[in-house]
Amino acid sequence: MKPINIGLMGVGTVGGGVATVLKRNAEEIARRAGREIRLTIASRRNLELARQLVGDDVKLVADAFAVVNDPEVDIVVELIGGDTVAKELVLQAIANGKHVVTANKKLLAVHGNEIFARAQEQGVMVAFEAAVAGGIPIIKALREGLSANRIEWIAGIINGTSNFILTEMREKGASFADVLAEAQRLGYAEADPTFDIEGHDAGHKLTIMAALAFGIPMQFDRCYLEGISKLDGVDIKYAEELGYRVKLLGFTRRTDAGVELRVHPTLIPESQLIANVNGVMNAVLAKGDAVGQTLHYGAGAGALPTASAVVADIVDVTRLLTADPEHRVPHLAFQPDQLKDLRILPIDEVYSSYYLRIGAADRAGVLANITGLLAENDISIEALIQKGSASEGNAEVVILTHRVQEGAINAAIAAIEALDSVAGKVVRLRMEELND
Amino acid sequence: MKPINIGLMGVGTVGGGVATVLKRNAEEIARRAGREIRLTIASRRNLELARQLVGDDVKLVADAFAVVNDPEVDIVVELIGGDTVAKELVLQAIANGKHVVTANKKLLAVHGNEIFARAQEQGVMVAFEAAVAGGIPIIKALREGLSANRIEWIAGIINGTSNFILTEMREKGASFADVLAEAQRLGYAEADPTFDIEGHDAGHKLTIMAALAFGIPMQFDRCYLEGISKLDGVDIKYAEELGYRVKLLGFTRRTDAGVELRVHPTLIPESQLIANVNGVMNAVLAKGDAVGQTLHYGAGAGALPTASAVVADIVDVTRLLTADPEHRVPHLAFQPDQLKDLRILPIDEVYSSYYLRIGAADRAGVLANITGLLAENDISIEALIQKGSASEGNAEVVILTHRVQEGAINAAIAAIEALDSVAGKVVRLRMEELND
Repeated sequence: MKPINIGLMGVGTVGGGVATVLKRNAEEIARRAGREIRLTIASRRNLELARQLVGDDVKLVADAFAVVNDPEVDIVVELIGGDTVAKELVLQAIANGKHVVTANKKLLAVHGNEIFARAQEQGVMVAFEAAVAGGIPIIKALREGLSANRIEWIAGIINGTSNFILTEMREKGASFADVLAEAQRLGYAEADPTFDIEGHDAGHKLTIMAALAFGIPMQFDRCYLEGISKLDGVDIKYAEELGYRVKLLGFTRRTDAGVELRVHPTLIPESQLIANVNGVMNAVLAKGDAVGQTLHYGAGAGALPTASAVVADIVDVTRLLTADPEHRVPHLAFQPDQLKDLRILPIDEVYSSYYLRIGAADRAGVLANITGLLAENDISIEALIQKGSASEGNAEVVILTHRVQEGAINAAIAAIEALDSVAGKVVRLRMEELND
Repeated sequence: MKPINIGLMGVGTVGGGVATVLKRNAEEIARRAGREIRLTIASRRNLELARQLVGDDVKLVADAFAVVNDPEVDIVVELIGGDTVAKELVLQAIANGKHVVTANKKLLAVHGNEIFARAQEQGVMVAFEAAVAGGIPIIKALREGLSANRIEWIAGIINGTSNFILTEMREKGASFADVLAEAQRLGYAEADPTFDIEGHDAGHKLTIMAALAFGIPMQFDRCYLEGISKLDGVDIKYAEELGYRVKLLGFTRRTDAGVELRVHPTLIPESQLIANVNGVMNAVLAKGDAVGQTLHYGAGAGALPTASAVVADIVDVTRLLTADPEHRVPHLAFQPDQLKDLRILPIDEVYSSYYLRIGAADRAGVLANITGLLAENDISIEALIQKGSASEGNAEVVILTHRVQEGAINAAIAAIEALDSVAGKVVRLRMEELND
């Protein structure tokens, strides 16, 4: 059979990885796909740098539009990132009747509904395994592997930078700022790390997984985001004493009231496998009504792991290139006319358990006041420890609550902060047992 | 579109689960598959028991051949098990041009080459996600998700019964016999547990995964099998002291000399996530040259988890029902004409690290003799601890070795056992760091 020609837009770290994998594993891949798959054209403004990454036998162009408009190209790979020029290029590729493979989580989380609608009209595939959790085939698992299930919730450690920082903070007792500086030195964090540490990246990935799991459109703008930059090492330590690890978790759950869609630092019981996913590694825990919990773990970033996902998509698309659309897996797991516009819950309506750290005067009655306010708000306590130096007249009270609506815990916290015997703001972290 | 009619052969626990999932999640499944999927006919000798499991709206027959010969059936699900009548039925279904979904690991590991050849000739699909690791979509991950990779090795905890027994032995310090009796009482072990505890079941599953990973035919008869029934609790305890867990591991690795294919109790560092997979849960760790390590964890058995895999296969097959064979994923991941008959290594040629426990007289020179014999055989030592009661004049020496060929360690063990100062047989367990 005729070889498949790949056009690559964006030759950076991952693009170089894709070129490497396609070349190094060419025979293995052809034995699977049933035909040769070759990179024929690639674009990057700096042609010299691109040449070093893709080798000598690939045509290089400075203008990415030359790739999407190349009549010889069967599948376009978009690795430019962002949602400006990348969006234009992807839409042009689709308009040209070309299939697209992309690792661009932001593009899909923000503009996915439009892109998939155009792809549907043109009868082309847009594949995006590399957009979530790098090399872990989680898109395929959610879209195909668990297709028998009513998926109930998904919890993911899906940002390697944040997970590296949290792991180092716990293991070395270091501060956020110190570890961030180290991560930047090691190349695990960008010079401007906002996108990773404030939860945007995880939110994009979570938005995509929620769409696949629940059959809903992409609604990134309704995703609640809270990062790790304000996290105090003392809370990581107290959490550990109580048997929990703190992770930046993307969590989405289908409830009768609507869909929870939220990224925030989260206490997870250390007995959970996912609590032991450390360093830059990623993992996604999915709960289906039939299968129960499945965990999918691996490298969430890096040239070759991401290329693994990109090239797997290329093989899938190659296989279905001339198939009728009905033979293909729907972009968002459910048939396009079967998506349901479920409501995304505002964070105040979400139910969670909570970790509270309260700075209190170390004197009689304080604990009674605090627990009394929690009781008044119907919040029951799972665990309570008192910490800190009685000598200085101050103590810290750490409380783990049972499940309660966020609005209720916030009301209780406001009341607690108003107590004379309580100093400063109450630290509040969410907690998920992940055992239902 | 016309609904898809499923014929089910074997209405037991899993068959009941399939009926439940197809009914309970009918809407969700149809939204994904693009058409209704319904169970129309099912077979079991005892019609009354079958009726309780599948409900009122399914036609029941006592003769499974009535299912494969039913012209209204599009996809046949085989859940009878074993490789006698199940084989006949599957071959008849194929001959009738019907697609098959099966959970039958033994049938495929032993007769898969013949079955897939017949399916290829007839242009039908035989899907088998449920045959390995129950609800974990590991077949899909190996066959499609990791298709860009040269897969280097796979390590799996793929027998829930054995893993339950090993977990209990470690946590409770109980003997193999006591825990087996408990497992039988709980329904986690059969009255005759041989198939599970002696590694046959894990061997079938490993054989299938090796075929998918390396593009080789099924060769179960060359799979090395060693079970857990002779395992002594003291070795589990010593292993733990050294930072290891003992697991019944299915392990397959591609080497220049050939393919390792082996099931045996194995020490794994407790820092590995897979070492912390406990109870009846399953997990598969796969190493690809691009992706690195990915771990896939979930329920390896049970009515609904297994049904999750069966029904996911049904959805896949439904989607590709009228597609050309080239649009389908090859049965064994690689195109049928692209399989390579790589040599399976005899166990003597395999390289591993080893745990040795040696009963020795507690007197000067013994340790020198033992370590001398290891050195003579070019076996280097990673760790050594001496245990036991000097008062009784006996000690136990526990040694962890670096990697060495099995033939060499056996030669060294024979020489050690011949020492006057060594009592009884040397206990030898294999050890895999799983970090390459």
